[in-house]
Amino acid sequence: MSERPTASVLVTGSELLTGHVADANGPFVARALGDLGFAVRRVILVGDRPDDLRSALDHVSGEDLVVTSGGLGPTADDLTAEIVAEYCAAPMAVDPALRDRIHAKVAGWAKRAGWAGPALDAATAKQARVPHGAEVLEPVGTAPGLVVSRGGGPVVVVLPGPPRELTGMWPAVVAAGPVATLLERAPRAEAIRLRFAGIPESDIAATLREIGADLDLARVEIITCLRRSELEADLHPLPGAEGIAREAADRIVAAHRRKLISDDGSTTDELLAAALLERGWTVATGESCTGGLLAGRLVDRAGSSAYVAGGVVAYSNEAKTAQLDVPADLIAEHGAVSPEVARALADGARARFGTDVGVGITGVAGPDGGTEAKPVGYVCFCVTTADGQVISRDPQFPGGRTDVRERSVDLAMHLLLRATGRTGPGAHR
Amino acid sequence: MSERPTASVLVTGSELLTGHVADANGPFVARALGDLGFAVRRVILVGDRPDDLRSALDHVSGEDLVVTSGGLGPTADDLTAEIVAEYCAAPMAVDPALRDRIHAKVAGWAKRAGWAGPALDAATAKQARVPHGAEVLEPVGTAPGLVVSRGGGPVVVVLPGPPRELTGMWPAVVAAGPVATLLERAPRAEAIRLRFAGIPESDIAATLREIGADLDLARVEIITCLRRSELEADLHPLPGAEGIAREAADRIVAAHRRKLISDDGSTTDELLAAALLERGWTVATGESCTGGLLAGRLVDRAGSSAYVAGGVVAYSNEAKTAQLDVPADLIAEHGAVSPEVARALADGARARFGTDVGVGITGVAGPDGGTEAKPVGYVCFCVTTADGQVISRDPQFPGGRTDVRERSVDLAMHLLLRATGRTGPGAHR
Repeated sequence: MSERPTASVLVTGSELLTGHVADANGPFVARALGDLGFAVRRVILVGDRPDDLRSALDHVSGEDLVVTSGGLGPTADDLTAEIVAEYCAAPMAVDPALRDRIHAKVAGWAKRAGWAGPALDAATAKQARVPHGAEVLEPVGTAPGLVVSRGGGPVVVVLPGPPRELTGMWPAVVAAGPVATLLERAPRAEAIRLRFAGIPESDIAATLREIGADLDLARVEIITCLRRSELEADLHPLPGAEGIAREAADRIVAAHRRKLISDDGSTTDELLAAALLERGWTVATGESCTGGLLAGRLVDRAGSSAYVAGGVVAYSNEAKTAQLDVPADLIAEHGAVSPEVARALADGARARFGTDVGVGITGVAGPDGGTEAKPVGYVCFCVTTADGQVISRDPQFPGGRTDVRERSVDLAMHLLLRATGRTGPGAHR
Repeated sequence: MSERPTASVLVTGSELLTGHVADANGPFVARALGDLGFAVRRVILVGDRPDDLRSALDHVSGEDLVVTSGGLGPTADDLTAEIVAEYCAAPMAVDPALRDRIHAKVAGWAKRAGWAGPALDAATAKQARVPHGAEVLEPVGTAPGLVVSRGGGPVVVVLPGPPRELTGMWPAVVAAGPVATLLERAPRAEAIRLRFAGIPESDIAATLREIGADLDLARVEIITCLRRSELEADLHPLPGAEGIAREAADRIVAAHRRKLISDDGSTTDELLAAALLERGWTVATGESCTGGLLAGRLVDRAGSSAYVAGGVVAYSNEAKTAQLDVPADLIAEHGAVSPEVARALADGARARFGTDVGVGITGVAGPDGGTEAKPVGYVCFCVTTADGQVISRDPQFPGGRTDVRERSVDLAMHLLLRATGRTGPGAHR
């Protein structure tokens, strides 16, 4: 179906197979390749055993492009470059100029670490060994990247494992000759990204079935993914199908306009930051069950000090009263988890910090503390503004403690966005 | 080298190849298999194209066990069960009793959703189609798991994609006959897990080189992994090498005792919660640059309301003064990011919330706001206690905004643990 060039990603590192460390390189490279127009076929995590890397390379021999990460260090068990050279039947030799550049980079700290002489020279020379005919990508750390071609097989891009080095080298990957040649076959069309709040994937699937009766959706790759409470739908047109993708996107938006967050890839966080800055508003939080996660999310963005004053985590009833002026009577009458207390938390945060907007969250995150009337997952939200808006919700979330808290933060972000008066991209048309 | 049974994990889902969604199933299954004694060879993420799944199955045919996740839904493009049945040469048929149980599960909400008749029956029957000879794992959602064997090839365990369903089914996987048979070959020896604070991997590597002169470390798989500011070292002995692993662990601990957090796998969070409960202490936070993430981390544990009173996120100078009684003069004299203000935040949080322990954090998270004297990454910490302890630090962290904030939360957790008087497992011997 697809005429796009294909790619696979091989991430090496035994520690990744323990399940204790999350791999960041696979997702980064997959996303970057997808954005460039490649059809990404698979991401393979393998350990540091040479035979496993060899068999993985054989497995992906049908691709146009293979990107590896890891195994480029100065020690003998860092074998990726050797194995790729063998796979591409390219003999290796030290590149003297590269060796000198790496030497210059490491000389300073090697000296301070008391490391010099033959051991240092051997390590430097090892990292400067390059397969014949390979394009060298200048090191960000001490290991160079490599672009090697296998006759009749894939172009292999060899990158270091530390994410900072890998991402730092990415612009050079895209510019490398063999990669640029493949990119000529990649569709230039931009993907369209739609983002919705609070609709299930099955609703989009139903819409796509309807649209599919009129449009040739086989020429548009549509990938939906649910990230907690937001649904992203990416439409990647094949060359020539840009018009179909645009029409499909318009019809999806028309069917779910009330739930649309953005049709240009903007995130809720970006939209909220822009809306608060535009209005010149400041925000304060009063959190119970989310314990500071909403404040943490708000200040996650650089420059957030322009619109976030701060917040209070009032986990105990005493703290709610003492720090946010929630009347003890109100808690006694309605319970700490109640729409009334959520509103008092919002008002208290707004008053204490002197902001334009206050948001209050109180709920039963679990696993204990649920009752029949207020089960685990029941969370009360309130956003109040200096200009008199009061936006309240008290949903019942599914899932465990972490799910409930994450969904709570998401919903609070959406309610804050609503309070700014921003009513979705549809409103601007 | 290894005599352990081998395993690979196949995770299906086109959305995973976009890089926008993090896969949770691969790490969960890899970790669970490793804990059971399997040697995990690879984790492969593939899209929903049938041919890609077929070729991935062929690629892992040499394993003893293959675990798949995803592609078990009720619609026609959920094809994992069919493809695995074909791979195992097992014809499929509807299991009538299973179909009835699934029907009973979905009947309620299907009715509310106005879904009934032939479409519902077809969807239910599709999910009840089972390869001949397969062991059925009871659905947690609506899709059953399957355990199928390929003659002369691997045992294939087929699991649903939603993480809640997959993890809920895991005990049944371990108990399934063909898996239990493989487990008889898995080493019973428990892995030893050491956890250290603030040492680089290269230090452990150097210690291992020394130890390797005396001990046969080829018989112990040692995997180190750095998770932000903590280093975990897992020692997996092959059968018969338990004594070597124990001695190696003792020598690693002896070389780095001052940095040891635990030698039994306990996390900093677990140790801190236990220590606070044991002392009957309560905690309050005063956060600036971490913006609530420390409070969020503290209340992440179920039952944390017993020892967390709450906290204040005081992002602006005004909030520091108004909410945590940090004297405006102090800020003017030393700057908002200073050891003095960190201490005032800790004292202010402790006083306002009436707790035994207060912790203050103020720093330059970046990307802007750094100066020559106080560059991006400079963070001041203080923990003060009602019994008169004052523990201060002001490190300079590397990395970007997210790194700085995550490392700050880690260090604050370590300082809190220190304030409880817990000085590492070495102290208890």
